Amino acid sequence: MENLNLNGSVTAGKAIRCKAAVCRKAGEALIIEEIEVEAPKAWEVRIKILCTSLCHTDITFWKMSTGPAVAFPRIFGHEAVGVVESVGENVWEVEEGDMVVPVFSPNCRECRDCKSPKGNRCSAFGNARLIPNMPRDKTSRFKDMNGEVLHHFLYVSSFTEYTVVDVANVVKISPQIPSDKACLLSCGVSTGVGAAWKVADVEENSTVAIFGLGAVGLAVAEGARLRGASKIIGVDLNSEKEEIGKQFGVTDFINPSTCGHKKVSEVISEMTDGGADYCFECIGLASLMEEAFNSTREGWGKTVVLGFEMHGTPLSLNAHFLLRGRSVAGSSFGGFKSKSDVPLLAKSYLDKELNLEGFITHQVSFQDINKAFELMLEGKCIRCMIWMDA
Amino acid sequence: MENLNLNGSVTAGKAIRCKAAVCRKAGEALIIEEIEVEAPKAWEVRIKILCTSLCHTDITFWKMSTGPAVAFPRIFGHEAVGVVESVGENVWEVEEGDMVVPVFSPNCRECRDCKSPKGNRCSAFGNARLIPNMPRDKTSRFKDMNGEVLHHFLYVSSFTEYTVVDVANVVKISPQIPSDKACLLSCGVSTGVGAAWKVADVEENSTVAIFGLGAVGLAVAEGARLRGASKIIGVDLNSEKEEIGKQFGVTDFINPSTCGHKKVSEVISEMTDGGADYCFECIGLASLMEEAFNSTREGWGKTVVLGFEMHGTPLSLNAHFLLRGRSVAGSSFGGFKSKSDVPLLAKSYLDKELNLEGFITHQVSFQDINKAFELMLEGKCIRCMIWMDA
Repeated sequence: MENLNLNGSVTAGKAIRCKAAVCRKAGEALIIEEIEVEAPKAWEVRIKILCTSLCHTDITFWKMSTGPAVAFPRIFGHEAVGVVESVGENVWEVEEGDMVVPVFSPNCRECRDCKSPKGNRCSAFGNARLIPNMPRDKTSRFKDMNGEVLHHFLYVSSFTEYTVVDVANVVKISPQIPSDKACLLSCGVSTGVGAAWKVADVEENSTVAIFGLGAVGLAVAEGARLRGASKIIGVDLNSEKEEIGKQFGVTDFINPSTCGHKKVSEVISEMTDGGADYCFECIGLASLMEEAFNSTREGWGKTVVLGFEMHGTPLSLNAHFLLRGRSVAGSSFGGFKSKSDVPLLAKSYLDKELNLEGFITHQVSFQDINKAFELMLEGKCIRCMIWMDA
Repeated sequence: MENLNLNGSVTAGKAIRCKAAVCRKAGEALIIEEIEVEAPKAWEVRIKILCTSLCHTDITFWKMSTGPAVAFPRIFGHEAVGVVESVGENVWEVEEGDMVVPVFSPNCRECRDCKSPKGNRCSAFGNARLIPNMPRDKTSRFKDMNGEVLHHFLYVSSFTEYTVVDVANVVKISPQIPSDKACLLSCGVSTGVGAAWKVADVEENSTVAIFGLGAVGLAVAEGARLRGASKIIGVDLNSEKEEIGKQFGVTDFINPSTCGHKKVSEVISEMTDGGADYCFECIGLASLMEEAFNSTREGWGKTVVLGFEMHGTPLSLNAHFLLRGRSVAGSSFGGFKSKSDVPLLAKSYLDKELNLEGFITHQVSFQDINKAFELMLEGKCIRCMIWMDA
């Protein structure tokens, strides 16, 4: 259990100077700088980050140099856990000292979508996620020591000792859960487990194939394992993922480079007597989405797309194969509603059901944050935990 | 109620000579000829057709002159109702005098798929539907007066006074339902109602858009109406469909040719405050499937593909839009399991819930069957009932 004592009563209402890892230019190493973090405005929460981890989406936007979603200098990071330092007006949901998980997926609980039991796309705040600032007033809470504005990322920006997040993007969580495990629930693990539970609704004795065994793919396996799937096939070009996958319930492994003239979909069809009940694409390639679709069984096979297509290529499907009873679904954040579902995942971990340990393969201190980027780029880590106080 | 008296005890076990409408060459008028219909073999049922109707799929295959599914001379027709004249060995499910609906969608009740509550694709007999003969021994039960084999169509072949159908393709139905209404349940109406009920699972107060108001699209509207959808938008290039649609619960109508510079998806988005909960493509054009997809709301919008893509064009979707919580599903026969679900539809009609009257816009006698083709090709009829004894 973390020590949640803070100094909020002293700092509340004032700007805070702290260290942040600033990205000044696309693809360049982050620079640890002193920055100023404004006090939270109405409906905002200022959070002292305890630990944060690096997700592929950070890498994608860190590399990106053109397009409407690009804004430098910027503070990346969107998987984290922290403690509330202070809150702005109209925030009653959390208070100083609460352990919270900031989430890129908003959940205002007021809009038509948040009130509906279907879906998890907050229509009040979910449509402008690529705006590089705060969701309500579209301005930043960060500036550098020269007074230059630093941009936010995905409404979270966790590569800083203190950040400001809209209350729609904050989930209060039991302080009983260790902070590194809570951090995992902030994006990747929730996305994967949710895809298995909410989007696919995997049931006992079903067969599952997962394309891409990164953190999200492994979390899909973990979700499918907990639902009692009888066969969980991992597909990855990295053969080391076979052993890693076993920790999360992967029962069978396919390395596409060793399939010879056979397509992966043919191999999966043979292994599952006609196709998997559920296939998950966790990489972001339209060609793999199609192969996943072709790997599902006729009658009821469902393909879940989780990967953000890297090249903007459209998904192309044989329309006649759809008529044979197949379907395709997508979601972000695994279809989970942040505020109600993330605490349930924490409970599942505390009840010793959900395996979170295995995701953390590396740990670094905040000043070594660029090491986390190197490890991810080399494909060597699943999750590298970045400790702020280490 | 029909007069179900037959002469089965006299004809059972023997070939029957009767009239059939034979198609000798792709796209040519059918010729009413005397043919010979063999006695049913094991697991087969010989049926005296009472009435039959013409569906677009007949037209599609009637026009088709090349490909593996082509076989002439052939007896088309797959929407019908009849009375069992005699049965072959191993048939206990129906007996002489039973009123039955032959269905192209098999339901063996023994395979993994038929035993599962999910889906409706019989894996024992559903994979070879384009074989132009009987499903088990792949031979024909029809020959002409010169002894030449006449091929079957979709395991039904109803454009004949007597046909032979596998027991997996026969549904026993209450004789209380008038035969023309029962006939509608054989294909088109079941496909549309099932798409709304089984595949989309439309719920009360939801919004629905239907691309193509032919018999299937109108049946989707009828299914959505019975589920209590609050807005049912019909989309059709034929403005006459606006009035027809109203009979089946269509509340709003869009003629794409009158939308000016706006896309249909934009118009639907405006009419539904962000997109329809459910969209149905009932024509068979990949471009329309994509437009239907774009017309669904983010968060939970579902597109159901019912149309058999006419040109073999793949369905192309913006992969990023999937991640916003949209999904696409297909099915044949509306996801209905023939044997259990068609009798429920008959009950719904007899309980005065399901509107079947409005689908029958024309009636002809069997000798005028080519008139039904003309009406369909001119886009003038929804369903033309063809009466065998008239």
